Amino acid sequence: MRLRNKPWAEPLIKANPEWIVTDPEKYQGKWQERFPKVAPLYIEVGMGKGGFVLAMAQKYPERNFVGIELQTTIAAIALKKQLELKLPNLQLLRANGGELSEYFAANEVSGIYLNFSDPWPKKRQAKRRLTYPTFLKQYAQVMQADGLLEFKTDNRGLFEYSLVTMNNYGMDFAGVYLDLHQDLEKNAENVMTEYEEKFSQKGQPIYKVEAAFTKASH
Amino acid sequence: MRLRNKPWAEPLIKANPEWIVTDPEKYQGKWQERFPKVAPLYIEVGMGKGGFVLAMAQKYPERNFVGIELQTTIAAIALKKQLELKLPNLQLLRANGGELSEYFAANEVSGIYLNFSDPWPKKRQAKRRLTYPTFLKQYAQVMQADGLLEFKTDNRGLFEYSLVTMNNYGMDFAGVYLDLHQDLEKNAENVMTEYEEKFSQKGQPIYKVEAAFTKASH
Repeated sequence: MRLRNKPWAEPLIKANPEWIVTDPEKYQGKWQERFPKVAPLYIEVGMGKGGFVLAMAQKYPERNFVGIELQTTIAAIALKKQLELKLPNLQLLRANGGELSEYFAANEVSGIYLNFSDPWPKKRQAKRRLTYPTFLKQYAQVMQADGLLEFKTDNRGLFEYSLVTMNNYGMDFAGVYLDLHQDLEKNAENVMTEYEEKFSQKGQPIYKVEAAFTKASH
Repeated sequence: MRLRNKPWAEPLIKANPEWIVTDPEKYQGKWQERFPKVAPLYIEVGMGKGGFVLAMAQKYPERNFVGIELQTTIAAIALKKQLELKLPNLQLLRANGGELSEYFAANEVSGIYLNFSDPWPKKRQAKRRLTYPTFLKQYAQVMQADGLLEFKTDNRGLFEYSLVTMNNYGMDFAGVYLDLHQDLEKNAENVMTEYEEKFSQKGQPIYKVEAAFTKASH
């Protein structure tokens, strides 16, 4: 999603450093200091307006979450929601997902979520896809070996591509779902993003893969 | 597909040993002797009535093919078609796909096709699925490391399961297609099975994965 930068966005972010981080290198290996309780840390790369990570933080109070978004205005929209809820186990981060290994230490992350990432459909754009090998390498560097990368999308081309890159990287698939909302058992615990609700209502299948870096090179 | 055995089937098979093999152990490492020309060998495990392997043998005269089917009557139906066409680069085999490594030598096979295999949907039936690890092991034992296993199905549950087992076995995905008939470029070279034509006309997506045992244990 692309939004023109709103003039209120940057000042709102700057005014709320206790809820949104803009200098993540400072917290590498120290993210637990940003939360009242030490707990396993889950991150969402490309949180968009934050609907998913806010819902997850409410649903799993025994976990800590970091929602990451590069675009200032979109990160600020998520921040507005968090300023209403003030969830203690959620921190936001305005930063580039391609540099995760500078923001988190090895094994600092217990799980990673990617939801409805930009498909960048043209071949020459492939390196911007969040499942391109350079991104997978970043995830592998910060996540525990038994941690799961959970990736959801409605975009068939991106999902086909991602299954291949994740497999070729040496990741171990724990589960693949080709029509998540038909897998009733799995769907019962599914937290939907804004996109997901919209696309699912149109009857489009939602794809999901859960995979670990168990045997992959880190 | 299950069919009651027809009384004509076994005699027809016995009467045509030059076209259909029933004692495959004899040909282990010697399959090229059954063809007029030495050529890369491709096998279909579970050929059903043979529509796919017959079409492939016509389309690729520079390859040799073996179509394998366990059920006598179904194998005999495929045999009837081959007796009309007498394709020199196609041999049929009435045998159990679970014992491939007794029928073929290591590296004797250049590629393997699985098309619309029985999904065996109940958990306790999983070991009968043609992508259960014991079957993958058989394929790995007979196929060249850079050879491709090409698996097509319309069954979502079987495909989800197979992506996981093939990945966990260490196979390298070369391509994944979640709606094959929408991937126009790929579809141009697709040879359809009888099932595939029927299901595709109903608008159901056809799934396909191409994968090699490049790095997997043999």
